[in-house]
Amino acid sequence: MATVTPWEVSGSVDYDKLIEEFGTKKISPALREKLVSLAGEDNVMLRREFFFSHRDLDLVLKDYEAGKGFFLYTGRGPSGNMHIGHLIPLVFTKWLQDKFKVNLYIEITDDEKFLHKKNLKWEGVQEHSANNIADIAAVGFDPDRTFIFKDSEYAANVYPLLMQTARKVTFSTAKAVFGFTNETNIGMVQYPAYQMVPTFFEKKRCLIPAAIDQDPYWRIQRDIAESLGFYKTAAIHSKFFPPLQGVEGKMSASMGGSAIWLTDEEKTVRKKVMKYAFSGGQESVEEHRKKGGNVEVDVSFQWLKMLFEPNDKELKRIESEYTSGQLLTGELKQILVDRLNAFLAKHREMRERVDVDKLMYDGKLAKKMWEATYKA
Amino acid sequence: MATVTPWEVSGSVDYDKLIEEFGTKKISPALREKLVSLAGEDNVMLRREFFFSHRDLDLVLKDYEAGKGFFLYTGRGPSGNMHIGHLIPLVFTKWLQDKFKVNLYIEITDDEKFLHKKNLKWEGVQEHSANNIADIAAVGFDPDRTFIFKDSEYAANVYPLLMQTARKVTFSTAKAVFGFTNETNIGMVQYPAYQMVPTFFEKKRCLIPAAIDQDPYWRIQRDIAESLGFYKTAAIHSKFFPPLQGVEGKMSASMGGSAIWLTDEEKTVRKKVMKYAFSGGQESVEEHRKKGGNVEVDVSFQWLKMLFEPNDKELKRIESEYTSGQLLTGELKQILVDRLNAFLAKHREMRERVDVDKLMYDGKLAKKMWEATYKA
Repeated sequence: MATVTPWEVSGSVDYDKLIEEFGTKKISPALREKLVSLAGEDNVMLRREFFFSHRDLDLVLKDYEAGKGFFLYTGRGPSGNMHIGHLIPLVFTKWLQDKFKVNLYIEITDDEKFLHKKNLKWEGVQEHSANNIADIAAVGFDPDRTFIFKDSEYAANVYPLLMQTARKVTFSTAKAVFGFTNETNIGMVQYPAYQMVPTFFEKKRCLIPAAIDQDPYWRIQRDIAESLGFYKTAAIHSKFFPPLQGVEGKMSASMGGSAIWLTDEEKTVRKKVMKYAFSGGQESVEEHRKKGGNVEVDVSFQWLKMLFEPNDKELKRIESEYTSGQLLTGELKQILVDRLNAFLAKHREMRERVDVDKLMYDGKLAKKMWEATYKA
Repeated sequence: MATVTPWEVSGSVDYDKLIEEFGTKKISPALREKLVSLAGEDNVMLRREFFFSHRDLDLVLKDYEAGKGFFLYTGRGPSGNMHIGHLIPLVFTKWLQDKFKVNLYIEITDDEKFLHKKNLKWEGVQEHSANNIADIAAVGFDPDRTFIFKDSEYAANVYPLLMQTARKVTFSTAKAVFGFTNETNIGMVQYPAYQMVPTFFEKKRCLIPAAIDQDPYWRIQRDIAESLGFYKTAAIHSKFFPPLQGVEGKMSASMGGSAIWLTDEEKTVRKKVMKYAFSGGQESVEEHRKKGGNVEVDVSFQWLKMLFEPNDKELKRIESEYTSGQLLTGELKQILVDRLNAFLAKHREMRERVDVDKLMYDGKLAKKMWEATYKA
């Protein structure tokens, strides 16, 4: 049995079952086509169904067509350095912002990570936050339509809205949705309210691109939003970015050495992929040439499919050559290594020159946010 | 059976039992003398035992003598207008500040009142806050040693410390101490952390003058303070200021028409005391002259005793004349009416000319507090 909560993802996830269990909807081909047509461009993560589920995405697109607009919201829990899996939903989020020219709010949940991880000190979480924000900024969001904020810094601006949200949620509800117990600290108990608050930043529909494990927050938000005078939030859910060790589960910081960190050098990336990436190939070259590889369990192939080989023909070619045994595991891995290193090189280059302050304090949206106090 | 919690005081309170139940200490004659001697002045509320219980007051005085100093902290929940009972502990707090020249922090718990009272709107609580702050400022605190802050406004400055405090308290503890249930909203569950935070504003011992119903907060603070690197807070507890209707219980805003509001005109005060003040006198003048009155149950006499007749000889004279039947109920009430109206006239005059902004933003301490972010 798989476990999927905002704090733990493990086991073999059956995404169709998850949709049923969470009460979300699969993105239908028709809805995907509509999104792509309004965006004016296709997207590999949609086409390959890495983003696979949603809530009210259809209504968001209707609002957009009707000129009412919408806004984007996502976030990051700064519990450590960021690996490549953390960046993927942000890359998709940037695509949405670019195509629809909408505001984007990115919440850095330093409070939640501190409250949840008793081994972390406040200062440590702040270091991680600064580091993570630089990585997030490097994705290249619109500096005048993006606001990255840290919960601890922005607390006074949202405090009235935070209280209004918190008053709507009983301990009983939080317990049922998040599994809180008597031993949960009182900060964690209130925290879900803060994660809901940004969905109320505008009187438009909010669209949240995030992995599906965050959905429990949106379930509560949807129960209380209208009573506070706001829209039920919409969401577009991704699958979990798998670790090198296998296509099951979610790449996690606790995997330590085997995760691909955004700071990894070219040689390190090569070494990790060669050493850890679970292969669908055969034991020996001879056997592989004869029987061929299995792309379904091959992590290198799956990563290429999720994002790193956006060209469908090229992916098809890799798939058939690998399946037929023409392409060896080492060769397949080398393709991924090259793509990863190109991606990381571009990321590091952006990280050097991006103006973080613009996204947090000085850009058009950021400035407006610091002047505002939010209430229902 | 009496009920005493931060949200409810009812029934006949046995203060000796409360000391035992709460685990506090009675202020001994020796400790009172020590406090008075260090203050350099006697105080009616101490002498008449309106302030009757404490935690670590002896250690506070030791610290003061050793030159380590201490600081004061009290607060107000802005759920409505203020009546005379609300002002009493603040008058005592001012006396302490005047005598010991120490910093004083006054927390306006707009969040807690909003979270607790579902019938209140956010805007309403803010109106009450502004109103209450003006009344509190009128007590005449030292403008450079006092910081009055509203929880919602000051949230970002304390947020790291708030999270550090909240992480130390489990739902189980909060439930046991405050009686929270599954139906309690998640904001209320975290709130106790905020009421503890100001006890950590300085690395000195904190002394809290407040009615004893607030003690549960300090009990938790004392369990966690040292693990955060701070002192266990000290407290000096008052009894409850009784309503006009009888010496039991606590004057409450919900008593509506019968409470003496700080805005009540002279005529109104007279009318209320004459109409509602429970009398220890006899049914008729003749009977009263013969049997005399009972000061123990006479609210007018008790109010004079608590604060409004600080002269011991004069109080003695009133007591013996009333007990002997020489002083009639109407005459006793008139003495109280005159004192109350003098008190309220002075209060209103101060309220007109006090500089609230100095206590909240521009005074020496206030300025320093707005520049600081607090963490453990």
